[in-house]
Formats: sequence, C-alpha cells, structure tokens
Amino acid sequence: MSELRKDPVVGRWVIVSSERARRPSDFAPRPVRPVLTSCVFCAGHEDKTPPEIAAGRPPGSPPNTPGWSYRVVPNKFPALRIEGELEPSAEGLYDRMQGIGAHEVIIETPDHQASLATLPADSVADVLLAYRERVLDLKKDGRFQYVLVFKNHGEAAGASLEHPHSQLIATPIIPIMVVEELSGSAEHYARHERCVWCDVVRQERRDQRRLILDHDGWVAVAPFAPRFPFETWILPTAHRSAFEESDVDALRGLAGVLGDFLRRMNGLLHDPPFNFMLHTAPLQMPALDHFHWHLEIIPTLTRVAGFEWGSGFFINPVSPEDAATALREITAAG
Amino acid sequence: MSELRKDPVVGRWVIVSSERARRPSDFAPRPVRPVLTSCVFCAGHEDKTPPEIAAGRPPGSPPNTPGWSYRVVPNKFPALRIEGELEPSAEGLYDRMQGIGAHEVIIETPDHQASLATLPADSVADVLLAYRERVLDLKKDGRFQYVLVFKNHGEAAGASLEHPHSQLIATPIIPIMVVEELSGSAEHYARHERCVWCDVVRQERRDQRRLILDHDGWVAVAPFAPRFPFETWILPTAHRSAFEESDVDALRGLAGVLGDFLRRMNGLLHDPPFNFMLHTAPLQMPALDHFHWHLEIIPTLTRVAGFEWGSGFFINPVSPEDAATALREITAAG
Repeated sequence: MSELRKDPVVGRWVIVSSERARRPSDFAPRPVRPVLTSCVFCAGHEDKTPPEIAAGRPPGSPPNTPGWSYRVVPNKFPALRIEGELEPSAEGLYDRMQGIGAHEVIIETPDHQASLATLPADSVADVLLAYRERVLDLKKDGRFQYVLVFKNHGEAAGASLEHPHSQLIATPIIPIMVVEELSGSAEHYARHERCVWCDVVRQERRDQRRLILDHDGWVAVAPFAPRFPFETWILPTAHRSAFEESDVDALRGLAGVLGDFLRRMNGLLHDPPFNFMLHTAPLQMPALDHFHWHLEIIPTLTRVAGFEWGSGFFINPVSPEDAATALREITAAG
Repeated sequence: MSELRKDPVVGRWVIVSSERARRPSDFAPRPVRPVLTSCVFCAGHEDKTPPEIAAGRPPGSPPNTPGWSYRVVPNKFPALRIEGELEPSAEGLYDRMQGIGAHEVIIETPDHQASLATLPADSVADVLLAYRERVLDLKKDGRFQYVLVFKNHGEAAGASLEHPHSQLIATPIIPIMVVEELSGSAEHYARHERCVWCDVVRQERRDQRRLILDHDGWVAVAPFAPRFPFETWILPTAHRSAFEESDVDALRGLAGVLGDFLRRMNGLLHDPPFNFMLHTAPLQMPALDHFHWHLEIIPTLTRVAGFEWGSGFFINPVSPEDAATALREITAAG
C-alpha cells in the first residue's frame, strides 16, 4: 500500500509508492562524464572565463593565471545581470521588473576529474567558505533579497559543463519556495514557540530510521516526505538561520559530512547526476527564530511528469526509511 | 536584458531570459516514437489491461473486446489504490494517511500511430467526454477531494508507453498547486470582486500579443509568466469553475481548439514530448466565483535544474510574446 505524507514545513504532500518500489540497483546508471574535449574551467584556460571575482591562491599568485585551488567567476551567459535598476512596473494585471541580479560560477577545483566526493575535506571546506564570502559580499547590495547557491552535476541534472562547479544566483525577490518555507515555519513557531527544523532534527535523531549521518554538529536525514528517491537534507543540529554566519570550524564539519554523504550516494547509485540547493534566510532578514538553514540534495533518478507538474504532488518510489538504511549501510568508500 | 515576471494567480516569479533566447528551431527534436513492438493498449490486446471501466463502443459491442474508439482502464501499476480507508494519523511532527485514490488510464484511440493532434475533432471530443464522465463518477466517492486529469506524451515527458493515452488520479487531498491557485484567486476576488482568470482572458484578448487562438468560446494563450518555453493555457472565455459541468457542445469546441493548438505545436517544435494538466475546482466545492478551470500544456524542451528545484523560480529562454507569435503564424497543418 502506498502512503501519503505531508512535509511539515510547506505542507506539500507526497505519495510514497512502495508498491512501485525500486531498489537502488534498479536505477540504471546514467554516466555523467563524457569524453573530455577542451574545458574552459580547467587550469590554463583562465582567459576563457570572465575575469575572476575571487579565488583560492597562494600569496603572490596573480589573478586569472594557473595556481588556484578554486575560482569564482561571473557566469558567461547569466540569467540575471548585475548592471541596472529594478524598475518595477505593472502591465494591467501583471507585475514585472528588470532582470537584475548576479549569476556566478564557483569552479571547485582545477582538476577536471575530481569532485566534491573525491576532494580532501579541506578543499571542500574552501569551496563552502567561497560560498560564504560571496553571499556576504552580495548582501551589501541593497537590490538583492536572496542568494541561492546550487549545484547541477551531470547532464540529466542540468549541467552544461562537466568540470566540477557550483553556481549562485542573487535575486531581487525572495523565491517562492523560500517564501513557503518561511511562512510554514513561522506558523509552526507561532503555535509551538519552536523551530520546525529543530523539531525535525530532534525527532530524527530519536527515531533513527531516517537518519543517515550524525556527527560534528551536523545531520544528514532522509526527509519524512521526500519529493525524490534518495532526497537528503543536511542541517546543522544547532539552530542557525543564516548560512553566511557559519564560522570556519562549522564549515569544516559540514565539508566532512557532505563528502561522506556524496561518497555513499555515489557508491550506492553509481555516481548519479544530482542537484543540491542551499536554503538560507533572506539576506536582509536579521536572525530568525523560525528559519533553520539546510542543504537539500536530490539525485536525478526519475522523470517528473504531468501529475507532478500539475499538482506539485510528487510520486516517490523509494521510502525515505529504505533510502536511509541503504545510505547508512554502504561503507563511505563505496 | 532579461525580465522578472510574476504569475498573477499564485505569485510565482519567473525569469524571462531573452538574452539566452532560443528560436523554435534551436530546440533539437527528441523523437517520441521508437519502433513499435507489442503494445498492450492496441486493439486486440484488451486482455492485457485490467477490465475496462468505460469505453466508446457501438451498441452490442461487449466490453474488453475490439471495436472501441476509446477505453478507460485502471492503471496496472497505480500510484494510489481504490480499496481501503484513509486512516489519517500522526507520527510525532508528521502527518500521514493511506495511499487511497484512483489511478486510471484513458486510451484515446485504438490506432497506435494516431494522436490528439491527428484524430478527428469528434474523436477528441469523445476523449474529453470520457474525462468528464470519469470525474462525475469519482465525485460520488466522498473520500476523494480532487481528480487531476493529465497527459504524458513521449519518454522525456514521463510516458512509459507510446500508445496515445492520458491518465487521471483521484486524490484524498487537494494538491498543493491547486491550493495555491485557490488561495491566490480568492485573494484577487476579495480585492476586486472579479475572477483573476476572467481578467486574464479579457486582458489577453485586448492585448493580442500573447493570444494564440480565440474561437468558439475558447482561448489559447501564452501566460504572462510561463515556467516553460511555449507553455500554453486553454481556457473557456466564460467563467466556469468545474470542468465536469461542461456540456457536450462546449467540449466539442474545446476539442477543436486543442487539436488546432497541438498541430501548431507539433509543426513548430517537431512533435515534441509534452504534458498537459487539467486544473479544475476541487470535487466537493460548489460553483466558485473565483476559480476558472483551464488546461495547461507544457512541451518538454528544457531541463529543470538546481536553481528551479531550490527556488520554484523558473528560467525561461523564450518570451511568451515570441512563443505566441510563432504559434499564431504557423499554419495549423504544420
């Protein structure tokens, strides 16, 4: 019998369809690394990207030359542009504004064949620190209300380049999914005087069935009502609303948990395409008692079809309890 | 310069990224018809499906034999099951209920090679009438709050079988996307005493730039803030909240407009994979002044990636004005 489950934050129901159950081995691997041709993100090709905004370099290493460990560059084909004014306007019923924002690429390593799963934890921590620095910098621009950090890995997950990279887009509005998380969690707080994600962390640590990893002040959990098979959330166990206020030690801990999780996922699901998305509080909001930042990771294993697009109601063939068990049991080495 | 646009119903912003613009010819065709092997939906294979619930048959033609023009059968691998009680329950923070519902398949024609774009308008109308009859029947079951009728055409759009068919899923809850449309449109009604979709129809008919078709009491429009390139909505021009209250003449008119639109889309975009989803009022709600039923059609041309999954904020490389112009100008024959 399948089951309906409701996300406690946004109120989104999902169908956990265990009768259509598939085991990890039923998801055919979709290889993510075609043959390497010429890559604009590789070391030595620094002139193929717009000039770097930030980079990890030894002292004295000039910008836009080899020798870096990570680079942040503007996206060459940005969805939103940094120059200009918002000019909000109406057209009859409708609202519009100019496409102002920032769209940046974080090149995670000079090594085309590496990944956040294979890099040393210190290098992963450097990438997370680069996210933090970029968010702190973009926060100074009063036009922006939000920065979404995300990663597309593999063509099926929307990556157009295979070299390891993540992206961020700063937007002049708060994205609707964050608005929904804010209002759902504010409602929970108003009723209970507790953060809903703190409640989730407490319940999952007690319950254990959906807990994948728990160390160094971080948990990786399979959410109770996951949209996708093997969807996983990583959260700090202590209440924190803003990612960019994390200190270096915290981000080193996160780097360890993220790398461990990605190696387990790759081992279990054969290096699948995946996305991750960082949900943090809006830039201009002071510390919020009801919002708790977290990283959402979704491997690309199933197709989204008419039912999901028409309803926002996802059919998930793998229960989060089964997903968490498989991810716990596989050795981190794969 | 790209532009941000807000959907007037649910408040969802999209990025219309004209600098990343692509013309219809830039979308590589993804053929949807692999070689025919043995098809369980073809005439003569009636014993390969569960027994039919309804069918278009001449007088005297026995069920589950050839001679039908359309058939409605239970989905062999249903996401939700018809038997049982909902048994809603809590697990700490979380809400759950049994996966009760109905999941049916509407086989649109016995002809494997036909489609809603090539069938005569009368046959398309018969399929729409079959949707109506199934919704009216499922409405009698007090456990169900909603029926979503939808279609997946082509593998990239989530179809697992190529024989022309659509589906419906009856659910014991109102899907979140419909909840959002209900609350957005109720807010608009409270402020203006007008249905927001009636306002859309009026503005689009006056403006013309996003109007694709307008005949027989139906319009096909490119929405102001479309999530996807060439996304199109078909709406009755007169206010109607419930699809299932449409009369035969109305559905004949819709069949003509739908067929015309699909032929234009196929001609312009090379028979793309697509989904459509029917948004109607919840089953147990009497006629609503603020809700206006409509059909949403989305060709599968782009990949959804981390930014969209993390934000609910879509990046659309084709403006709806360009999409509507191209769809208006192509001859219906292709």
